[in-house]
Amino acid sequence: MSKLAWGLIGGGEDSQIGRAHRTAAGLDGAFVLAAGALDIDPARARAFALALGAARDRAYGDWREMLESESKRSDRLDLVTVATPNQTHFEITKALLEAGFDVLCEKPMTTTLAEAEEIVAIAQKNRRLCAVNYGYSGYPLVRQMRAMVAGGDLGRVRLVVAEFAHGFHADADDADNPRVRWRYDPAQAGVSSVLADAGSHALHMACFVTGQAVTRLSADFASCIEGRALEDDAQIAFRMSEGAVGRLWTSAVAVGRMHGLTLQVFGEKGGLSWAQEQPNQLRWTPLNEATRILERGGSGLAPAAQRASRLVVGHAEGMFGAFGNIYADLAEVIRARKDDRNPDPDCLHFPSAAEGLHSIAAIHAAAASAKAGGAWTDVSA
Amino acid sequence: MSKLAWGLIGGGEDSQIGRAHRTAAGLDGAFVLAAGALDIDPARARAFALALGAARDRAYGDWREMLESESKRSDRLDLVTVATPNQTHFEITKALLEAGFDVLCEKPMTTTLAEAEEIVAIAQKNRRLCAVNYGYSGYPLVRQMRAMVAGGDLGRVRLVVAEFAHGFHADADDADNPRVRWRYDPAQAGVSSVLADAGSHALHMACFVTGQAVTRLSADFASCIEGRALEDDAQIAFRMSEGAVGRLWTSAVAVGRMHGLTLQVFGEKGGLSWAQEQPNQLRWTPLNEATRILERGGSGLAPAAQRASRLVVGHAEGMFGAFGNIYADLAEVIRARKDDRNPDPDCLHFPSAAEGLHSIAAIHAAAASAKAGGAWTDVSA
Amino acid sequence: MSKLAWGLIGGGEDSQIGRAHRTAAGLDGAFVLAAGALDIDPARARAFALALGAARDRAYGDWREMLESESKRSDRLDLVTVATPNQTHFEITKALLEAGFDVLCEKPMTTTLAEAEEIVAIAQKNRRLCAVNYGYSGYPLVRQMRAMVAGGDLGRVRLVVAEFAHGFHADADDADNPRVRWRYDPAQAGVSSVLADAGSHALHMACFVTGQAVTRLSADFASCIEGRALEDDAQIAFRMSEGAVGRLWTSAVAVGRMHGLTLQVFGEKGGLSWAQEQPNQLRWTPLNEATRILERGGSGLAPAAQRASRLVVGHAEGMFGAFGNIYADLAEVIRARKDDRNPDPDCLHFPSAAEGLHSIAAIHAAAASAKAGGAWTDVSA
Amino acid sequence: MSKLAWGLIGGGEDSQIGRAHRTAAGLDGAFVLAAGALDIDPARARAFALALGAARDRAYGDWREMLESESKRSDRLDLVTVATPNQTHFEITKALLEAGFDVLCEKPMTTTLAEAEEIVAIAQKNRRLCAVNYGYSGYPLVRQMRAMVAGGDLGRVRLVVAEFAHGFHADADDADNPRVRWRYDPAQAGVSSVLADAGSHALHMACFVTGQAVTRLSADFASCIEGRALEDDAQIAFRMSEGAVGRLWTSAVAVGRMHGLTLQVFGEKGGLSWAQEQPNQLRWTPLNEATRILERGGSGLAPAAQRASRLVVGHAEGMFGAFGNIYADLAEVIRARKDDRNPDPDCLHFPSAAEGLHSIAAIHAAAASAKAGGAWTDVSA
Repeated sequence: MSKLAWGLIGGGEDSQIGRAHRTAAGLDGAFVLAAGALDIDPARARAFALALGAARDRAYGDWREMLESESKRSDRLDLVTVATPNQTHFEITKALLEAGFDVLCEKPMTTTLAEAEEIVAIAQKNRRLCAVNYGYSGYPLVRQMRAMVAGGDLGRVRLVVAEFAHGFHADADDADNPRVRWRYDPAQAGVSSVLADAGSHALHMACFVTGQAVTRLSADFASCIEGRALEDDAQIAFRMSEGAVGRLWTSAVAVGRMHGLTLQVFGEKGGLSWAQEQPNQLRWTPLNEATRILERGGSGLAPAAQRASRLVVGHAEGMFGAFGNIYADLAEVIRARKDDRNPDPDCLHFPSAAEGLHSIAAIHAAAASAKAGGAWTDVSA
Repeated sequence: MSKLAWGLIGGGEDSQIGRAHRTAAGLDGAFVLAAGALDIDPARARAFALALGAARDRAYGDWREMLESESKRSDRLDLVTVATPNQTHFEITKALLEAGFDVLCEKPMTTTLAEAEEIVAIAQKNRRLCAVNYGYSGYPLVRQMRAMVAGGDLGRVRLVVAEFAHGFHADADDADNPRVRWRYDPAQAGVSSVLADAGSHALHMACFVTGQAVTRLSADFASCIEGRALEDDAQIAFRMSEGAVGRLWTSAVAVGRMHGLTLQVFGEKGGLSWAQEQPNQLRWTPLNEATRILERGGSGLAPAAQRASRLVVGHAEGMFGAFGNIYADLAEVIRARKDDRNPDPDCLHFPSAAEGLHSIAAIHAAAASAKAGGAWTDVSA
Repeated sequence: MSKLAWGLIGGGEDSQIGRAHRTAAGLDGAFVLAAGALDIDPARARAFALALGAARDRAYGDWREMLESESKRSDRLDLVTVATPNQTHFEITKALLEAGFDVLCEKPMTTTLAEAEEIVAIAQKNRRLCAVNYGYSGYPLVRQMRAMVAGGDLGRVRLVVAEFAHGFHADADDADNPRVRWRYDPAQAGVSSVLADAGSHALHMACFVTGQAVTRLSADFASCIEGRALEDDAQIAFRMSEGAVGRLWTSAVAVGRMHGLTLQVFGEKGGLSWAQEQPNQLRWTPLNEATRILERGGSGLAPAAQRASRLVVGHAEGMFGAFGNIYADLAEVIRARKDDRNPDPDCLHFPSAAEGLHSIAAIHAAAASAKAGGAWTDVSA
Repeated sequence: MSKLAWGLIGGGEDSQIGRAHRTAAGLDGAFVLAAGALDIDPARARAFALALGAARDRAYGDWREMLESESKRSDRLDLVTVATPNQTHFEITKALLEAGFDVLCEKPMTTTLAEAEEIVAIAQKNRRLCAVNYGYSGYPLVRQMRAMVAGGDLGRVRLVVAEFAHGFHADADDADNPRVRWRYDPAQAGVSSVLADAGSHALHMACFVTGQAVTRLSADFASCIEGRALEDDAQIAFRMSEGAVGRLWTSAVAVGRMHGLTLQVFGEKGGLSWAQEQPNQLRWTPLNEATRILERGGSGLAPAAQRASRLVVGHAEGMFGAFGNIYADLAEVIRARKDDRNPDPDCLHFPSAAEGLHSIAAIHAAAASAKAGGAWTDVSA
């Protein structure tokens, strides 16, 4: 099975997210970095792409150069990942889709709702894959939750409780640190800070697991550190398309919380609870029975969860595996198309552009609701 | 040190809360049950009081009988606990206070806000103690949190996150069970179900630990089981008197959650996290440092926490100890008054009628906000 | 139901264990302190007994005085607890049993094996109750484990793993503290320190839960702090009467461990795991199935576990409840004898003198094995 | 930085350990699979090597063929991993070392002690790297423990407690499963089963973290399932080269335990506790202070731990990262030799052949001690 040709835009040498994408794309050996425009500095970009093994003529100094050159090649890139700063996602993703590339875009997919709608439309029109990296949805036990809900184990879902709390923007003395400050500058971050950044993962997971969309919401935004123009803490009450009630809390000032992404789902027939910091266990409580601890890799899990596991039960898997599952799904879909066959249905779990759009719509609705004193606000997409 | 004379109204033989009060009152040997009107059935009431060791002439069939008789005695009751059904709290507590008794009332102190205000006024006028049993505030490490906030360890408190989630009303087939059904009947339960019942403990704890009152809030109530006239799940955003932001979630349909009362407090200088189900540990994260696990009974705790501990570090203490601390505080205050001295300041942590009033005000404000689509609503008391 | 008359020897004002016994004996209101010889200092002993409510003529200055006086009374004590220093247990317990009293003795029951055998013989001959306070066996979920083993849920028990690790004797600078030092002085502590003190609880629990006795063992004793004549860390391999394999580790130098008493039991059909620091949950893994979390007070528990619970599921219970269950059992047996009926079989779980003897035999065998370089050594009783 | 050429022997398509090695070797992009003899079946071996990207002339059917061919090439393999069945490790590793290759061998390095000594001697004589894959020692927080001990944070280490308990050989009905049975056949597994398999990881970790060797030990082996010629449960008491006391328990019949590899280290100044199933947190208790939770990736960790981390704090890392750190260390050492410079000292943490030898010596000593009734036995290497 020859490797798929992968291109990466952004994600330079010091980039945490770049490393995560490279590791995830290579985890199963499905993708090989064939081309890259990895840095805003052209020289550094080319040097790093070469260091990562790209051929000399595919180590680009700039994404436009890469697009132009790659568009003409016969040995086309099978997938391009966009891991540049947020405000550039739209332009690059749009250009790639229009040129006929399949794309995995970092979240947020775009800055505005109109742009997100445009991306969805272009991808559909051009019949291109456009995935958005809500990477935590790649965790095997998150997929297990989704499978259990879809399979009816919980009955009707009544309630979803999602959280993403961390404390890394809690130091007032560090608030001017450029790596923190831009997140609270509307010019750079848009209408929302912590909800758009951390909270959107929680929101996506609520939708991903329940298979429901957020239809309307009431939000409260707070800036706990003086001088911040955007929220560093948010709470949202919401309702979903098949009637589920939702609660979401996200914070960047929760000192002592690290990467506190958690999801609880409660239905007629039982409840589920999962936490990103201990991703290899899932708590499942059938109604009126004792709580079970489901282990990643354990017997009895759904095929989609089994497939997303790389190690036998008891070992620890982590974020690289989760992100790797997004790439594994995309690899299968791309290969299936090449082979003119249907993809394995257990691989259709990567987050789509439609999901990216929905997240952006929900974030904008939340910002509007917060401004309107918590008024219930419809989510338009 | 002679024992204090204690009277109990309600809390009959099958009553869980009655057993808790008797155990808590007797835990340190400070109180002895001297009189009781323990059951709605006069014969059962007298028989049970006798069985518990009350003298024949103080084993009453009815609280009015008890009040009349006890009011005339020279060997007066030092404290009377009211553990009757909720809708009777006001009438009985009021009568006891007017007759000059010190009272510990189960929560909710009253059904309406006007009644709660009346209780506060009567207690003040008559210079009587009126405590309300937000019993979880008696846990040693809850008092430790309070002491740390008061002592400035957290700096300014920015954010409080309180939860009380359980799943014991999640079984739709059990919804007609009389022990469940009355809680969703506005005629019996008033304006709120799960918030007034479970959630009010979380709300009280947020106030108790921060020393701040809730000033305004935005609420969402949901009835996850069809046919319920009151909420079985609620979420509240709030603001507090010294600027803290608040988040609260409470649920009765969270299958798998048992007695999920938790509190997180985040300030400028650090964060705290405590859970009722593991009450003997408290997590404390100083800003930019590693999380510490503070142990109940461990060295270095605040005097109020040390005093509230009965066992050396490492042993498990539980709810009886917490409730017992409310009684221990009251015993000290009552004794100090008898001895004409100031009470130990580390015993002034029992929840007061003013706190009972504040809880009721907040619950009513939340019900009003939820009805008004989440509109921010002032808490009147 | 009139209260049972209880006497206490030892357990004076500053005594942690005295407080625990008083609280446990009074927890359900079954016992009332009728007589006491509570302190080595006669004046303090009498004063404290009076303060606790004993009648003037039953507040004794000395246990011999108490024995002589109480033996003549017609309103006899129903139970006497011995909570004096270890080396006096034998003499006092023996005298009480010979005078016809029922006794609850703190562990260790005696210092030597011969004494322990004598106690068992006297109790049998005089048909007196002689219980030994392996108090952690009173925890509801420890009784649940016992019931599950007895009921065959685990099939044949293959393996028991018991631990009691703490770090409170780890400070070399504190080694001369009298409260620590005596434990490492053979003249006061006998043949073993940490095994006899902490480890014996783990050993007892292994026997209590499996219903098997230790038949032979191989031990390693270590003194991690220089100058200690007795072990502050021990490990034992053992075999049990119905073939179970046993492992035990106990330590007093395990910095960071608090009250690390844990038990794991593994059988043909499943495994159990319990920890004293989180006593309200029990992990149960049926073979080839997911681990379940059994909650104290939850539905489906064995009658002996239900009976030992005082609060509904989700609340925290602790050590007072556990010790209280020993007293509750004894109360039921004493009452049954008074009533000339059979006691509730779910109350026959208090640790007996025979169990106290077995523990002492095992400790002595372990000390002998350790001295003999780990040679496998039979446990004589 | 050009990639290092990597060869793999064993680890075919269905092999869990093969996947782990391929993923780990590729995790940072340092190694590329250049040659392989991946399966006992030559055709499958060649096909799979091709599928993994090896050149046609380096996709071998057999390790001897590979050795012969690769020995002649000018573009030599930088590292060869041996992941074949245990009894072949010696022969293959020896041959590779003699041919001048650097080797990473799966554990156990050899079957007999004499063989292990030979490997160490050959590696030394030929100045070749020979590493042994005690892969859990690659976890960042295991390296943190090692650094803290080496840096004196614990003072003198008094006590090490190591465990590796699982329950995957507990099903008597599954005992004839070939994947289980061979482990209890002395002809295939040698003198020990669960100790050599799981327990040796715990033993290695105890040595790795303390920097001490096991000097003598007393062991108890048990076969909990009838008919097993080798132990499925073992306990070992040991002493270490600088005086530390050791305790080890390992089991294959501990139903409910998954991959229960844990290490506790207790010294004069504090204690450490780590568990493989939650590898991203480490508990550190300075003497007389509160326990701290150190997070992987958190600030303040030792350089060796920081270097072994690939993601920011709060994310989950797992086994691939740990194994990847062994490869990262080897890559650095290999590159340094190529560059004729000293390797980064924070990369000298891969387990060496000497450590592989020590493990085998300890296992053989334990088997001998167990046979001799727990007699204390010297560890020869």
